[in-house]
Parts: sequence; structure tokens; C-alpha cells
Amino acid sequence: MRTVDLIRKKRDGEELTATEIETLVRGYTNGGIPDYQMASFLMAIYYTGLTENEVTALTMAMLDSGQRLDLSDLSGAKVDKHSTGGVGDKTSLIAAPIAAAAGVVVPMISGRGLGHTGGTLDKLESIPGFRTALSVEEFRGLLAQHQLCFIGQTEHIVPADRKMYALRDATSTVESLPLIAASIMSKKLAEGLDGLVLDVKVGSGAFMKKQIEARKLAQLMVTIGRRMNRKVQALLTDMDQPLGYAVGNALEIMEVSQTLQNAGPTDLTQLSQELAARMIHLANPATGLDAAREQARSLLESGAALRKFQDVIAAQGGNPEVLSQFELLPNATGAQEVPAPKSGFITRIHALDIGQAAALLGAGRDAMERPIDPAVGVILERKVGEKVSAGTRLCTLYYTDETHLEEAVELVEEAFHIAADPPDPRQLVLEVIQ
Amino acid sequence: MRTVDLIRKKRDGEELTATEIETLVRGYTNGGIPDYQMASFLMAIYYTGLTENEVTALTMAMLDSGQRLDLSDLSGAKVDKHSTGGVGDKTSLIAAPIAAAAGVVVPMISGRGLGHTGGTLDKLESIPGFRTALSVEEFRGLLAQHQLCFIGQTEHIVPADRKMYALRDATSTVESLPLIAASIMSKKLAEGLDGLVLDVKVGSGAFMKKQIEARKLAQLMVTIGRRMNRKVQALLTDMDQPLGYAVGNALEIMEVSQTLQNAGPTDLTQLSQELAARMIHLANPATGLDAAREQARSLLESGAALRKFQDVIAAQGGNPEVLSQFELLPNATGAQEVPAPKSGFITRIHALDIGQAAALLGAGRDAMERPIDPAVGVILERKVGEKVSAGTRLCTLYYTDETHLEEAVELVEEAFHIAADPPDPRQLVLEVIQ
Repeated sequence: MRTVDLIRKKRDGEELTATEIETLVRGYTNGGIPDYQMASFLMAIYYTGLTENEVTALTMAMLDSGQRLDLSDLSGAKVDKHSTGGVGDKTSLIAAPIAAAAGVVVPMISGRGLGHTGGTLDKLESIPGFRTALSVEEFRGLLAQHQLCFIGQTEHIVPADRKMYALRDATSTVESLPLIAASIMSKKLAEGLDGLVLDVKVGSGAFMKKQIEARKLAQLMVTIGRRMNRKVQALLTDMDQPLGYAVGNALEIMEVSQTLQNAGPTDLTQLSQELAARMIHLANPATGLDAAREQARSLLESGAALRKFQDVIAAQGGNPEVLSQFELLPNATGAQEVPAPKSGFITRIHALDIGQAAALLGAGRDAMERPIDPAVGVILERKVGEKVSAGTRLCTLYYTDETHLEEAVELVEEAFHIAADPPDPRQLVLEVIQ
Repeated sequence: MRTVDLIRKKRDGEELTATEIETLVRGYTNGGIPDYQMASFLMAIYYTGLTENEVTALTMAMLDSGQRLDLSDLSGAKVDKHSTGGVGDKTSLIAAPIAAAAGVVVPMISGRGLGHTGGTLDKLESIPGFRTALSVEEFRGLLAQHQLCFIGQTEHIVPADRKMYALRDATSTVESLPLIAASIMSKKLAEGLDGLVLDVKVGSGAFMKKQIEARKLAQLMVTIGRRMNRKVQALLTDMDQPLGYAVGNALEIMEVSQTLQNAGPTDLTQLSQELAARMIHLANPATGLDAAREQARSLLESGAALRKFQDVIAAQGGNPEVLSQFELLPNATGAQEVPAPKSGFITRIHALDIGQAAALLGAGRDAMERPIDPAVGVILERKVGEKVSAGTRLCTLYYTDETHLEEAVELVEEAFHIAADPPDPRQLVLEVIQ
């Protein structure tokens, strides 16, 4: 079949065969199929969706477009976690050291942030000297030694995803659940994993605003995993307010440090422990989930996870002292407090607004080539459910450049909703899909 | 708004403003917007459609992408006709001479055929010496002198349509009613028309298989015309069997000649007269439709339309003697008769099969750069409703090359349905939209 006929078939809602999908992905990756045909195909998928067969075939075809890591020579199960992204989400930097301290091999290939927050790599790179551009051999070596290593995407891993994602970004076809699922799963499964824990964020600060959509995405990814013989679990977790108190790259490293020293925010600590427990459980299903939870708690409390993170920082060229001496991290030059305009209960902190305020100060980027400012961001002083008086400090903005400060303050002021009555309590983990 | 945001807006079913649509069309035509963004925009339109405001704005923007003819210095109303294309449809070559003989200025800019039939230009070019590649000045001069002239699209007229059509063809977005309507109307209104008669074909030999779809397309085009202050009428006409008996370029010129000499098929004569009458009526609304019909009939019967066509052929470099001496036209070298396999009534002649048989013999093309063979085609001997005995000749295939002859014969045999009972009579003009 010609490409135009495959587009028509999908356009008309018919199911493509695995071979047809492979032909399209391979042709697009090697340049035989032009951008404009892939663009119309992706828009057709936006409207007609993909069946389970199709989304699995798409993931396979994307995976086959580049190199896969083969980590089978490393002893121990390989399990990673992936978050769909939220404001203040630094759980990877806590859960991964816990899991690694439990002996799970965590080959964490991360992205940079685009939009309102920095990604895991951006956060790590706020640690002076920390190197994420490692060769595959270095990556393997560090995994063997420390069970954990953080690197960025290389151009050899899933090149089809890189090319398709750039096209989707330019043609308004990002927001398609099967395309999102195939993109995430192809990249993660290229890591040579045995298991994967997914943290699908739901709420105002997440890509998925509604639980029903988040559930569909999670189900799709778990299905792809099952069809490819990988153990995959997904948590749907609340992202209606930022996770923890810190939003901004170096600020989040400080909060990670506090959490690894058992002095972190409750929500961040609980979610990181739960994610780590599920990673441990997937690596060793014989260990029941409750036992894995107990192990995660104990590894955090004992400082084993902190030491693991210190070792990995040192191994990747960073100075582990930053975790105790925050002045070694990039520090902002100015601080601006934002007080409560009235007394009452905080009923909501609109996460996206906080994220965008941090981005305005320089913590995020709107184009991949832009540098980010590691020092800046927002520290919340109060969270949802707390009672405040007029004038109580709600949060502090840390900046190095005043250009967008006023705009950022306005966004933050709008983000806090204060009312006479306390809000209904919300659960952090909304649902588990497995 | 950035292009990607305009795509998203349309993708989500929101109405774009006229300025937004103009920005997209202008950007695409001048190369500022890449093919892949237009491809995803067109696929979004395929699914979400366009409002009346949008389709009018699209037509305007496409029209503004190139030159418009200004024929206001020519006296008399300018009225053209356009057919959405059918098998054996040669009404333009009869209706236009009738209307021109009535004093209507008919600036006919036509296309070449793609697919199963030749276009009006292909048919005319089977007349030795006939030139359709005229300059705009020659076109004007001939219109002033003869009220009728036939030319092809120039690259200066609606370049946006040429570029968008090629893209639609490669991305399976041809079959979108608003895109079809804007394409047709932009090209026709670029002719500087006061009025336009549309012949929207319905049936197995037409692009529109169903009357409900044809009606929607006709309504869209009439709406665009009304909003642009042009008088536009549309006839929905039957294309379940070929129009007339001749299918193939020179063969159709012969049938045009017979019809202009009052010896043509009834269906072709009636429809051509009706189209001409509506052109005359639109040019002079004071002339009632019945009076216009009478005028059209009389101009055909008197031979005035034949003389008009002869004059135009001569003016465009062709030999008008072809209309009486068919041996001056390209003639096929072989003929193959197809007999009826059994006795009964002809209940159906599948028009598309007949068109494809003619195309297989060389009368059509599947790529724009291919030459066509003007001599070849199919002459039906019997039409729907007629009673035949086993062995009666149903049609004759005229060929110059036997390569695909057998395949063409099989197609033609399949096209004829013969049954014991006569079919219900069908109307030629199914509906009028105005």
C-alpha cells in the first residue's frame, strides 16, 4: 500500500496491521516518508485513536528505530520509574536512590523540561560538576557499581520518537493519548527494563487535567507493557497543588536533600516511598508490596538512600557536599515574599500558575535551546488545607533578574485561593492501574 | 497567533477568523508555513469541517493568493458553468456555445482530467491545432469577439489551490466538502464572473456517490457565491450511467458535434440545454427561466450554437471542419464489440467502470504528466432502460494499443447489469439548489 492509502485507512478508522505501522515509522525515520504525510497521519490518529494492537505495534516500531540497551549482563532486575510531569515533582531523585539502595538496578534515562518546569536532568545539572552526558559504557559501569545512574536521551535511542515528537509539537498533535503512550513506552522500554513504575499526574499542574483521561493513558501504557512482557504499574497521583514546597531546579535539589534526611514535606516523602516500594516489589515480586514499603521506609530512615544519592552524585562528577551545604548550589540574588491578602483556609494552590511563575523567573524554558537559570524558583510556605491570617507569608520568589518578577508575583497571587471553610481533604495516590 | 495555535484551534472545532485563515493561506502560498503544518490543518478540517464564515474566508484567501481576471470592460454579464466531473460529461462544449450565442460572456477556464476521464481541455485538444495555452490578452480579445473562449489554468490564478490540492492528494484530504467547495469556487470566481451554474454529479460515476453529500457540497458552493455577491445556482444531476453514448476525448467531440446538429443523445441534449438556459437566466435575470429555456432550445435548433462553436474552434487555431468530417479527428485503429450475455432490460451501466475501461485504453491518465490518447474510448450502443437480446451489441471499445484491451472488455462487461424487469425510470436533474 502507498503511504497515502495508509493515511486514508487510518483516517477512515480502520485498523492498520503491525507491518503497515512499521512501514510508516521506518519510512518516516529514514526520510522516505515526508513530514507532511506523517503530519496528516498523526492528525488522523488524534481523531480516530489507535487500537491496542496498533499502539503496541507503534511502540515496537519506534523502539526498533534505534538502539536498545541490553543490560542483561548486570545482575539484578532493572526497574525504572517515569512521571508524566508535574510542578515540583522531584520524586525520581528520592525514589531511585531508595530502590537502588535496595539492590534494584535503576537505569534512569531522563529528559529536559520543556514548558513550565525543569526536567530531572535540569535539576541534577544545578549540582556543580554533575555530568549527564555519559557514554553507554560509562552508564553501564556506574550501574554495575552503584545500581543507579542518570543520563539524558542519546540520539541513538528511539530516533523515531525524537522526529515524531518535534513534528507533533509543530502540528498540534501532542495531545493524543496513544501517541503519548507510545512515545513514553518506547523510550522507557529501550532501556532494557524488566519493570516500570509510572506516575501519571492528574490535576491543574499536570498534562492530564482529568482523572478519566489520566486513567486511559495509564491503562494504555500498562497494556503496552503487558503485551511486551514487561511488568508495568501506574499510579494516578494528585497534581492539583505543587508536590512539596520547592519549585525550581537547585531549590528542588535542596528539598530532595531534606527529604533524604527525613526532614522533607509529607506529600513528597510519602509519594517517593510509595514509588520506591513499587519499584522494589516489581524487581522482586516475591517481596510482597507491604514488605517492599517497609523496606523503602527503612532505607530512607536509615540514611542508606541519602548515601546512595551522594555516591551517585560523586560518581557522575558532582560534589555530594551540596546536599548538606546549600551555599555550594547556585543561589538566587533576590527574594520577594508574597503575603496572604486575607485570612482563611487555603483551598487551592493552582500548580500550573506556580510552575509558570517559576518559568518566568527562568526556571523553565519555552524552547529547547534556551538556557535555564538553576538558582531561581518559588518556595511555598503554606499548602492546601492550612489556615492563614492576612499578611502571613504564602510563598517566596527567588530571582536573579527582575524583568518578569512583577508578572510572576501576580501569577502566584492568583494561584492561591483562600476561603472561610477548609477544603475537603484530597488523596495523594488516587488510583493504581496494573 | 502562531501557526501551531491556529491548527489547535481548528483541531478543537473552534471557528477561525477570516484574518486567521488568510494568514494561513498566505503563509502557505509564500512558503512561510511548511507543508507539514498545512497537512495537519487540512486533516483537522477533514474531521471538524468549516463553518460558512470559514469556508467563505478560505475561498477569499485562496482567490487573493493570485491574479484575478478583471473582465469588467467587456460588455455583457460573465457567466460560466462548472461540473464536478462525470463519465462522458461533455455538456460544457454544448452549453457554453449556446449561452455565448445568446450574448452571455463565457470565460471558461478548465482543467485537465485526472483519473478516469479526460477534462474539457483534453477533449478540445483532440481537435488538431486547437490551442488552449493562450495569454490573458488573447483570452480577453477572443471573449470580446466571440463571447466564449476556453483556456487552461495558469500558474498565476489561485496558486494556493494548486499547492493545497497537490498536498491534499498526497495526504488523503481530498474528500472534504468545504475544501472541495473552496477549491472550485476560488478558481471559478478568479475568472471575474457575475454568475456561475454548477453541475454537481451524483452517482456511481461521480465523486459524490450519494445525493445527500452532493446536496451539501452544492449548498456550500451556493452559499460561498451568495456571500461573495455572485449569482450561483447548482443542479444535482444523475451520473449513475455515462452521459450520452461517447466516452473518450475525440469520440466526445464527435458527439458534441452531433448534439449541436440536433442529432445527439436525449440526456446530453436536455442537460446541456438546461445548463445553458440557467446561464442565460443568471446573465439576464429579467429573462425568466422558461424564456431562457426557450431561447436555449431555439439557439441549438437553429444551428447558432454550432456556428458559435465552429467560430471559437477556428479562433483558437483548430479546424472547425472536424465537426462535420470526423476523419479529421484522431481515429482509433481497432474496435472491439461487446455483446449482451443474455436477454433482458439494462438496469444499470456502472459509469465508473466504463470510465476506467476508457482510461485503461488510454483516454485518461493516472498522473498529470502522462500523455493521453485522444482517439480511444468507449461508445455505448444501449443505455439504461433499453431491452436487449442475448448477443445484441452493448458497446464498442476503440483502441490503438491492445495491452489493456482484455481488462477493459472485462470491466465493460461487468458494468452492464441486465435483468428480466425494466428499471424504475430515473430523473436526469435530481434537484436545484439556489
